Amino acid sequence: MNERTHDRTDEKIWADSGDSHLVEPPDLFTEALPPALAERMPRSVKDPGGEWETVTVDGQSFRRRLPTFRRQLDAGPPPGRKPKDAPLESFADIERRAPGANDPVARLADLDDEGIWAEVIYPSLGIWSFSIRDPELLRRGVMALNDWAIAFQATSPRYVCAASMPLLDVGHTVAEMERAADLGFKVAFFTTRPPAGRDPYHAESWEPVWAAAEATGMVIGFHIGTEPHDPDQDTGVAHRGPGGAVLNYVEVSFGGQRCAAQLVASGALERHRGLRVLVSEGGATWGPFLADRMDEAYRQHGFVARPTLDRLPSVSLYEQVYASFQHDRSAVVAATAMGWRNVMWGSDYPHLEGTFGHTQKTLHELFDDVAPADRRRITVGAFEELFPHVPPAPGS
Amino acid sequence: MNERTHDRTDEKIWADSGDSHLVEPPDLFTEALPPALAERMPRSVKDPGGEWETVTVDGQSFRRRLPTFRRQLDAGPPPGRKPKDAPLESFADIERRAPGANDPVARLADLDDEGIWAEVIYPSLGIWSFSIRDPELLRRGVMALNDWAIAFQATSPRYVCAASMPLLDVGHTVAEMERAADLGFKVAFFTTRPPAGRDPYHAESWEPVWAAAEATGMVIGFHIGTEPHDPDQDTGVAHRGPGGAVLNYVEVSFGGQRCAAQLVASGALERHRGLRVLVSEGGATWGPFLADRMDEAYRQHGFVARPTLDRLPSVSLYEQVYASFQHDRSAVVAATAMGWRNVMWGSDYPHLEGTFGHTQKTLHELFDDVAPADRRRITVGAFEELFPHVPPAPGS
Repeated sequence: MNERTHDRTDEKIWADSGDSHLVEPPDLFTEALPPALAERMPRSVKDPGGEWETVTVDGQSFRRRLPTFRRQLDAGPPPGRKPKDAPLESFADIERRAPGANDPVARLADLDDEGIWAEVIYPSLGIWSFSIRDPELLRRGVMALNDWAIAFQATSPRYVCAASMPLLDVGHTVAEMERAADLGFKVAFFTTRPPAGRDPYHAESWEPVWAAAEATGMVIGFHIGTEPHDPDQDTGVAHRGPGGAVLNYVEVSFGGQRCAAQLVASGALERHRGLRVLVSEGGATWGPFLADRMDEAYRQHGFVARPTLDRLPSVSLYEQVYASFQHDRSAVVAATAMGWRNVMWGSDYPHLEGTFGHTQKTLHELFDDVAPADRRRITVGAFEELFPHVPPAPGS
Repeated sequence: MNERTHDRTDEKIWADSGDSHLVEPPDLFTEALPPALAERMPRSVKDPGGEWETVTVDGQSFRRRLPTFRRQLDAGPPPGRKPKDAPLESFADIERRAPGANDPVARLADLDDEGIWAEVIYPSLGIWSFSIRDPELLRRGVMALNDWAIAFQATSPRYVCAASMPLLDVGHTVAEMERAADLGFKVAFFTTRPPAGRDPYHAESWEPVWAAAEATGMVIGFHIGTEPHDPDQDTGVAHRGPGGAVLNYVEVSFGGQRCAAQLVASGALERHRGLRVLVSEGGATWGPFLADRMDEAYRQHGFVARPTLDRLPSVSLYEQVYASFQHDRSAVVAATAMGWRNVMWGSDYPHLEGTFGHTQKTLHELFDDVAPADRRRITVGAFEELFPHVPPAPGS
């Protein structure tokens, strides 16, 4: 299936990333908003040990455990040695290793080292906006967040920052999407489930939002693991007990797949054929599965399949949905052997769930045996299709 | 990748099915149990119009809409014609079309016509046992159900009936699994979520059950869409509104994937390497995705991944989990290009969500371009690996 044209193991592979992150500065809201509003916006306080964080949002408090990581990120357990023997690395260590992530100039040096060219960059505090219950507070806060993010984006044409969307009021969503597009944003960040009290994404009430996204050319960016939750729940924890961490990692991917399916099955994508959806950090191998599954449902369960569609669900998914993965070898095969051309690589920089520190090793493992055209498509081609304004990666 | 050795379009393709169904006779429980118990067991009453069914179980009533189907099951909408124009077929029509499904001799004639050789056959009323709250009633009822099913199985070596499991009490589950194995069952049917009040499948409390399955050689059969639900919920309905039917069809597949992930991530499969799991009717393309996703979680989220595993999750999944699909072309590629050898075809006979009436057309579309060894593996090889006692399909 694939051709190895020459030994490329020493070559630097450049790739665009469909999934990267920023952490907003702690004084963002106090600088940008009146004190009465600023104090209600999300703020994070770490415990002295660095293992736990408390995020406070408009009177609600969310506790979450911060990640620590094994140093041997990209290797399976060596034979005879259990993975628990691998040394751990705390979140504080990560911040020391990627201190420039929030510095627009130092970040470029990191990216150059890793071979990451352009990036879709998601917010961090912005994710917590789902827990705000006051539409006006949310609208004002998100505007401040986006004003800050667009200034970050302006420092390099390689930065494609995602504009956070106020999702409590459709009118606010549309207005902020249009404002964001005017400011120069190309991606609108949506949580993988709307905030409490709002209709699910397949409901008709979201129609003006999809229309506005198509009209402005904004890509809908669903970042997995951003489902709203109550203050008494830990972030991203659906399963506890043996294997819980692995199960939760699977579960958050279902959340991203569900969003893609909602936009396909409701007909939103075929009504708005210029609309593009990016599901970030949830893997990509699921695309062909979801396409076949929805086609089977639509054909065999036609008696309750509403609305009637002009195209099979697979057509809308294959053409308008994109997804980013980090390490999955099967994601490459989804593109090369299953024909889903919208598989896109992502670094998840600077999070150590991603490839920071071993990006070149990962890219070579994924692509050394892949035909040049396929490699190009997954590393830069799909990204350039969504964001044609970004200058091309070196050598591509 | 694939070689077409000759034109096989006229050849009859025989395939084993990892997913078929029976409907138990209405007098099963009244014949087998004392009246005081029998009247509390599930019974189904159809509305006169045939569109709705009421299932009554131990004082609870569940209403569900019965499927009607388009006649054009296997074709996408022709250009210029919307699928809603296709004629509908009611559930009653299906019963007229497959009247022999519950007759062990007539059923074989149907199977011969279709080219279906051996089958894993799941219960129907047995699925409703999740709604029984009295462990002793459940134990007695399930024994009656299994006594009936084993008699059905005895009529042909092509029938591999699944024994329903009483899941309210681990001791009962183990005892019935051992009794079922002694009776000649090879598969134990588990709902895709345990009944209310029981631990999830990745909990340690299930350990005696997995040990008993390994010791008896019983395959764990998870049939999708069998999650317990309350009487005020419609069966299998997680999403309403535009696209809801398609979304629910996707959602039930997540339920099957979740079960496979639970047995992998909890270490149950590596503790019991003789244990085999079959996920029926949920598609199969998800296997390589789930494998890569769990590996990434296990490596990158090692800080909370418990228990420590001796093998990467992908190894357990690739070796011990099997899955059946009906129409998905991508499922074939999951086997041929992603290396998951446990992809298994399934007919879903006699349900018209499956291939009844167009089995040969489907099998030719799936396999005419596939190398003979791959075709053999998916149509009969994986099935024979799980059930070596079954006589081989003609020509294989």
